[in-house]
Amino acid sequence: MEKINASIITIGDELLIGQVVDTNSAWIGKRLLENGIWVSHKFSVGDQYEDIWHTLDIAAKESQVIIITGGLGPTADDITKPLLCSYFEGKMIEDKDTLDHITHLFQHVFKRSMPLLESNRRQAEVPDVCTVLKNEIGTAPGMLFEKNGKYFFSLPGVPYEMQILMQNQVLPFLQIHFKLPPIAYRTLLTFGIGESLLAEKIKDFEASLPHEIKLAYLPNFGMLRLRLTAQGVSTEILESAFDKLKELTKEWLVVPSDITMQEVVAHLFFQNKKTLATAESCTGGYIAHLLTAIPNASEFFKGSTVAYSNYIKSKVLNVKSETLEKVGAVSEETVREMVSGTLAIMNTDYALAVSGIMGPGGGTKEKPIGTVWIAVGNNDKIVSKIIHVRFDRERNIHLTAIQALNFLREFILEKL
Amino acid sequence: MEKINASIITIGDELLIGQVVDTNSAWIGKRLLENGIWVSHKFSVGDQYEDIWHTLDIAAKESQVIIITGGLGPTADDITKPLLCSYFEGKMIEDKDTLDHITHLFQHVFKRSMPLLESNRRQAEVPDVCTVLKNEIGTAPGMLFEKNGKYFFSLPGVPYEMQILMQNQVLPFLQIHFKLPPIAYRTLLTFGIGESLLAEKIKDFEASLPHEIKLAYLPNFGMLRLRLTAQGVSTEILESAFDKLKELTKEWLVVPSDITMQEVVAHLFFQNKKTLATAESCTGGYIAHLLTAIPNASEFFKGSTVAYSNYIKSKVLNVKSETLEKVGAVSEETVREMVSGTLAIMNTDYALAVSGIMGPGGGTKEKPIGTVWIAVGNNDKIVSKIIHVRFDRERNIHLTAIQALNFLREFILEKL
Repeated sequence: MEKINASIITIGDELLIGQVVDTNSAWIGKRLLENGIWVSHKFSVGDQYEDIWHTLDIAAKESQVIIITGGLGPTADDITKPLLCSYFEGKMIEDKDTLDHITHLFQHVFKRSMPLLESNRRQAEVPDVCTVLKNEIGTAPGMLFEKNGKYFFSLPGVPYEMQILMQNQVLPFLQIHFKLPPIAYRTLLTFGIGESLLAEKIKDFEASLPHEIKLAYLPNFGMLRLRLTAQGVSTEILESAFDKLKELTKEWLVVPSDITMQEVVAHLFFQNKKTLATAESCTGGYIAHLLTAIPNASEFFKGSTVAYSNYIKSKVLNVKSETLEKVGAVSEETVREMVSGTLAIMNTDYALAVSGIMGPGGGTKEKPIGTVWIAVGNNDKIVSKIIHVRFDRERNIHLTAIQALNFLREFILEKL
Repeated sequence: MEKINASIITIGDELLIGQVVDTNSAWIGKRLLENGIWVSHKFSVGDQYEDIWHTLDIAAKESQVIIITGGLGPTADDITKPLLCSYFEGKMIEDKDTLDHITHLFQHVFKRSMPLLESNRRQAEVPDVCTVLKNEIGTAPGMLFEKNGKYFFSLPGVPYEMQILMQNQVLPFLQIHFKLPPIAYRTLLTFGIGESLLAEKIKDFEASLPHEIKLAYLPNFGMLRLRLTAQGVSTEILESAFDKLKELTKEWLVVPSDITMQEVVAHLFFQNKKTLATAESCTGGYIAHLLTAIPNASEFFKGSTVAYSNYIKSKVLNVKSETLEKVGAVSEETVREMVSGTLAIMNTDYALAVSGIMGPGGGTKEKPIGTVWIAVGNNDKIVSKIIHVRFDRERNIHLTAIQALNFLREFILEKL
């Protein structure tokens, strides 16, 4: 069976000069892989006619499927559509269905304050050599071109519009057209062991893997994901390798699937039908955000006090003034009192509290930047620990949140 | 003066299959541009020997400077270093300084629980045809290769290590070597106007720009940034164009620089020496997180109550039970009471409150998914408004946070 390779081309100066981080191509890569298409290359080019043209040439040499995003807006810096028209030797025509759709959007969906402009009307113009892919929620239509047996999909760069077009039009087309078995992958999440040490521990396993199965290490914020990717071997062989990997890593294993630490914690609460509240000082609401970004979080997550000032630690969470004066806000006593206070006020089964110094300022000799106290508890028991983070403010906040969520996970699983 | 183009190559299957979003290349692009080097292409390739080799060939054709990140870890899937050794026709040797550095890191910086492994020792091996770039905080050294007048920098994929190497080694080298004037750019942030409508309003301005100045539209979560990029024209010409742009967009102008909405709000508080607390229901701590990710946020931000349950809205924020029963948690009355409650409890100059339905569940006929009430106030006055967001949960949370912060900004500036 032939292997289908795809290339992704993202267009826009903003990607090259770093004003926008490209999240589209990661999303596209994941979806293509699930459908059995391996992304072999990604290209980003600016809004330069020759560069885009040349990249299309390169991508067409490398792959059978080319996904292009961006450059389709109504403004003058969006040059992709006329370029594709020339590249595929077509001429521009007005597509009636697209024009009707744009008119409908302006009349019935967008605010009345947004008039239909000539530039929006022009978005209904497409090359006569493409198949139009209807963009249900936006004004820029997707386009499909075929040339020498290669398929080029041009999609808007707005993530939400791109995603709906991929889901409803591009992937169904590719599934029908190529009839490929998916590339299979299995991922597990570990915590508390470094990449090189784990690699050392599983090196015999890695050497014993069949050629068709690849192992990858994905470190991220103190966590390490391990991924097995297989194509052309049976599910049984992949599952058996994955079982071995789980056994070898069981000491550090958080979950044998590709989900986040906050999802692991949320699943525990969904299963146990227990409730949680948090009290955050240094993480400033980030733990609450991670949890509440999960649909139905309100079933278990009742709330958080972001107690950034000592006043609020005392006033809302009933942390004793003596404690704050004697040992300070970043201390074992304070986080333990934050947990008791939270349990009492929020009336939940569990509470989690953090207090620390994230930098760039605020450190002292006794409590340098990166010192963090974490406590977790229920009405029976409170446990606490100190950690040290040593990066910039943003990364310190992330790392602290993940450490705190893992501490909560261990507490719920009665490992502490 | 010759124009210097750079290409960025990111290596790793995890980037292609979407398990990791590439933030490195945006960061690198921004830094290079500030130093007068334009990134013309970005390439991502998997851990495949031939693909990486071929991409090096393509990148070398396109650019004088090639920045490569990733693939330098201690594990077997990291094939970049031996590949570069062959590509530049060298042989591997042990670099004594690097070995000393790695040994030092393991003995004095990393935890004792991390032993120095053979795989870490091997990280001290480098091709004899490269200049070693010392990685102060990690075990994988950076490398510089030269071939036919082109410069290839190979850097680790860990963002923090890559950034320090870029800052301390790569950029100083490029500055000295190429002596280029920076590409200048000026950016402003607008709120409350769509891309096509604004483009229509400034189309004469855009047409009148000299060839050396480019205008780009960067829409993001209800905000629209406009960027002028110039190379080869005087600062005066760029500033004069930027002044015109500010004048034309003044109705929607938030700030004439490239900062975020939360930074704009934080600057207002730093200037005015006022204080803020928030009460968040549907945004679940995200507004607090945006503000507290800013260094020194504790100077103005005192805290937040993430009142995800009605119990906490009543118990902590003193929202009346009758209000919650009669008009519900997502209502004008509730967010106004959340503001009064927050001002009273948190003792701040300003308070901001939001309550809404983010989806995917929870909507009703009267209050469909995406209905959000926002209120902001001080001890003199409370104002409120309703908005409607219409995307997925994650995007709805982002949009609501930005709308709320802008509402707060307008209130502080006495526009409401």
